[in-house]
Amino acid sequence: MGFDVGQFMDADTIQAIKDIVGEENCSTKVADLYTYGFDASIHHRSPELVVQPRNTEQVSRIVRLANERLVPILARGGGTGLCGSAVPLAGGIVLDMTRMNRIKEIRVEDLYCVVEPGVVYDRLMEALAPFKFSIPTAPGSGEACTLGGMVATNASGMRAIKYGAIRDYVLGLEVVLASGDVIKVGTRTLKNSSGYQLERLFVGSEGTLGIITEATLRITPKAKKAAMIIAAFDTLEKAGKCVSRIIARPLIPSAIELMDSTCIKAVNKTVKAGFPDAEALCMIEVDGDPATVEEDAKTVLAICSEIGAIGVECSSDLEQMAKWTYGRKSIMSSLSRYGEGFVSVSLADDMAVPISKIPEAVVAFHRTAEKYGVIVGTYGHAGDGNLHTKMLLDPTSEDYWRRGEKAVGEIFDTVISLGGTVTGEHGVGISKAPYFKKERPTAWGTMNVIKKALDPNNILNPGKMAQWEGSILRMLRYPCDKYSD
Amino acid sequence: MGFDVGQFMDADTIQAIKDIVGEENCSTKVADLYTYGFDASIHHRSPELVVQPRNTEQVSRIVRLANERLVPILARGGGTGLCGSAVPLAGGIVLDMTRMNRIKEIRVEDLYCVVEPGVVYDRLMEALAPFKFSIPTAPGSGEACTLGGMVATNASGMRAIKYGAIRDYVLGLEVVLASGDVIKVGTRTLKNSSGYQLERLFVGSEGTLGIITEATLRITPKAKKAAMIIAAFDTLEKAGKCVSRIIARPLIPSAIELMDSTCIKAVNKTVKAGFPDAEALCMIEVDGDPATVEEDAKTVLAICSEIGAIGVECSSDLEQMAKWTYGRKSIMSSLSRYGEGFVSVSLADDMAVPISKIPEAVVAFHRTAEKYGVIVGTYGHAGDGNLHTKMLLDPTSEDYWRRGEKAVGEIFDTVISLGGTVTGEHGVGISKAPYFKKERPTAWGTMNVIKKALDPNNILNPGKMAQWEGSILRMLRYPCDKYSD
Repeated sequence: MGFDVGQFMDADTIQAIKDIVGEENCSTKVADLYTYGFDASIHHRSPELVVQPRNTEQVSRIVRLANERLVPILARGGGTGLCGSAVPLAGGIVLDMTRMNRIKEIRVEDLYCVVEPGVVYDRLMEALAPFKFSIPTAPGSGEACTLGGMVATNASGMRAIKYGAIRDYVLGLEVVLASGDVIKVGTRTLKNSSGYQLERLFVGSEGTLGIITEATLRITPKAKKAAMIIAAFDTLEKAGKCVSRIIARPLIPSAIELMDSTCIKAVNKTVKAGFPDAEALCMIEVDGDPATVEEDAKTVLAICSEIGAIGVECSSDLEQMAKWTYGRKSIMSSLSRYGEGFVSVSLADDMAVPISKIPEAVVAFHRTAEKYGVIVGTYGHAGDGNLHTKMLLDPTSEDYWRRGEKAVGEIFDTVISLGGTVTGEHGVGISKAPYFKKERPTAWGTMNVIKKALDPNNILNPGKMAQWEGSILRMLRYPCDKYSD
Repeated sequence: MGFDVGQFMDADTIQAIKDIVGEENCSTKVADLYTYGFDASIHHRSPELVVQPRNTEQVSRIVRLANERLVPILARGGGTGLCGSAVPLAGGIVLDMTRMNRIKEIRVEDLYCVVEPGVVYDRLMEALAPFKFSIPTAPGSGEACTLGGMVATNASGMRAIKYGAIRDYVLGLEVVLASGDVIKVGTRTLKNSSGYQLERLFVGSEGTLGIITEATLRITPKAKKAAMIIAAFDTLEKAGKCVSRIIARPLIPSAIELMDSTCIKAVNKTVKAGFPDAEALCMIEVDGDPATVEEDAKTVLAICSEIGAIGVECSSDLEQMAKWTYGRKSIMSSLSRYGEGFVSVSLADDMAVPISKIPEAVVAFHRTAEKYGVIVGTYGHAGDGNLHTKMLLDPTSEDYWRRGEKAVGEIFDTVISLGGTVTGEHGVGISKAPYFKKERPTAWGTMNVIKKALDPNNILNPGKMAQWEGSILRMLRYPCDKYSD
């Protein structure tokens, strides 16, 4: 199940693809190839051909050809992935799906919509808004990420605790298999017990089992009102306790975000978020009908006070909530401006642990960072146990990278020992691949069996998921990318 | 991918299994074998051996043995399935999983519980109640069905419109593969993007891909209050319109049940449900915080009046709601007492259509019933498009069965042409198998590829899902089961 890297395309194959989609929708320009070798991760590899298909038939014909000629092929959405899922490890073809961007149907009475894979999440939300509907998974990159990419990585965001991940909204998919055959899986009904739930197998498969060309997604009414509580604590443990106590009440907020002092300092400095300076901060959003929101906010405030919050603010003012949300969303970019010569990199970027293990996890992450002399900012969707750690390091220093990689290994060991997963919402890609087998020692083999059965020639995003071997630093986009293992 | 029927067990194999689980946990008595050849469907086939394993290791060893000796093996939960999923088509071994019935963990703060497959749904709900938590899928057979069976068939019930099916609660599974290997798929975290969502592939696979030996399930706070509205209409169309208008408001009730006049008459006669006599009836439940419930009930009442309901009742009294719910739950048994010499059989028992297609579907079902001279009672979870039709026929008459089967074929054709599915919540089993390929012409092949890859010797519940050929009447449990096609 290895994969080759190198020259797969010949002039004849390129011409055959041009004949399918038209010359204007293909590029072999070095600048284009270089650009399409990136996503938002630390990795890079240029493909040999970039294609922008317009419809399922074109995708089917291209994949069929790639399968016959054993050319690696990778479908790409908005390129917002943080772990390298859309970096073409083996070279070959990148299919840029963003031109297949039609919202085909919105059926409010039937509680579903049908989209092409290139539809951007925020565009779909705008289209649903007049009906007072949405898909409330709310990924952080909503303004740029596509529904196809979201389905392929099982994306979610800060509202997953109440509203789930995109897997919970996928009713049906149209998928182009490695053979080029087009299959329809799932239904347009709200539920089905009709055969294997293949639509949910393709969720999170990162293009390694098939290419999504259409998605039927469940839609749900928007909450009428929301309120937000910002609670500051003098220890991370207290913030973690606050999360656990809210849930056990039981009360499921629409979001519970956590940030440590590194993150608070960074956003207060760069975007003037106005968060209270503290060791830890919880940003809790409750939503629903107005009366429920009021009552839930009161309950949350009471719990914060029980735990001993050192400062609490509450607002249902849209402008204030937007300001806080912007502050939260700016953590990633703010951390990059933390210190001269440092960048914030996604190495261990979205592990998840059982909710009650959050304080233990965060304390252990900080200890690891100290041990390896790297700076780690920790924040994330504490309500569903999903944490983000960003490492601040000098990208030109190979020594920093090596220490960073060691720290990541230890962080993932912690996560696995706490019963967690190395990726809660971004996907495996390249960054999480070496740790993935550790987390899933038994499922790993079954995944390979399914991969072999559905893609016997290993053309679909090869080298990813259960196939990766070696160090994550092997394909760095940064200056020291001569690193080899 | 055919399967043999007949004698698979020899004395040596039976002894080897007795050595694994103990003689007291095995039976080859004719009465036991006959009993275990049934589920709640119209089908029957006796197995050759019944085994009651106590733990995963025993299941693993038995399956490994079955795989080596090419013996068909089927795991069975509560036996409440209505379409034959638990009828051992090929004979062989039935594993009765009901002795693996421990609730292993309830972790409220982490929003999950861990159960063995034989735990009965209502028992788990009782265990979660003190924490004010539940898994609100609410199958009609909750007092007898097991969580393992529910996962294996992607079961749900009348609250799926708001709360989803069991697939939406499966976080992780332990599964014994055909090889006997034990794998852990999924996580104990609320979300994961870590590899293929195998935990959701096994959901609905009806024991054809592996045997579930443990499930980690998401739990959610119980609603604080509920109210119920019973609205009577003089046409089925108006009842259907009522459903659509509520959803488009938007308002998602916790249940919207529909019943036609045949069903209303049957339950009023047998259990004195006290429903108003009408052509069609909607039973709408709203739940949530008290203020929300009050407001939502008002909205529903206003919509019922807009549509021209001929009678409306509303109550939040627990006793009254329990009485109505009991009436609704008694439809299936009440229909059996509809007329002397008739029984109510599950032939086309749980198809689902897009919600707005319900009136069209129900009218077409009635037309079909008339055409073939059978009586059909239609009811179901209109809020999520899931309809139940029960056919009333004389089970001793081969002619009746033949007409019934023709009517079912036509009903399923209607469902498929409306963009629906032949099974919304019960599974494929035997009853839906011949129609299943029609509904899923393209997914069918992929299902077979996955089946072959994971169960190359075809020992796991063989002949089901994508493998069935022929008439559903081939294995009738009723007197005329000499029927052959």
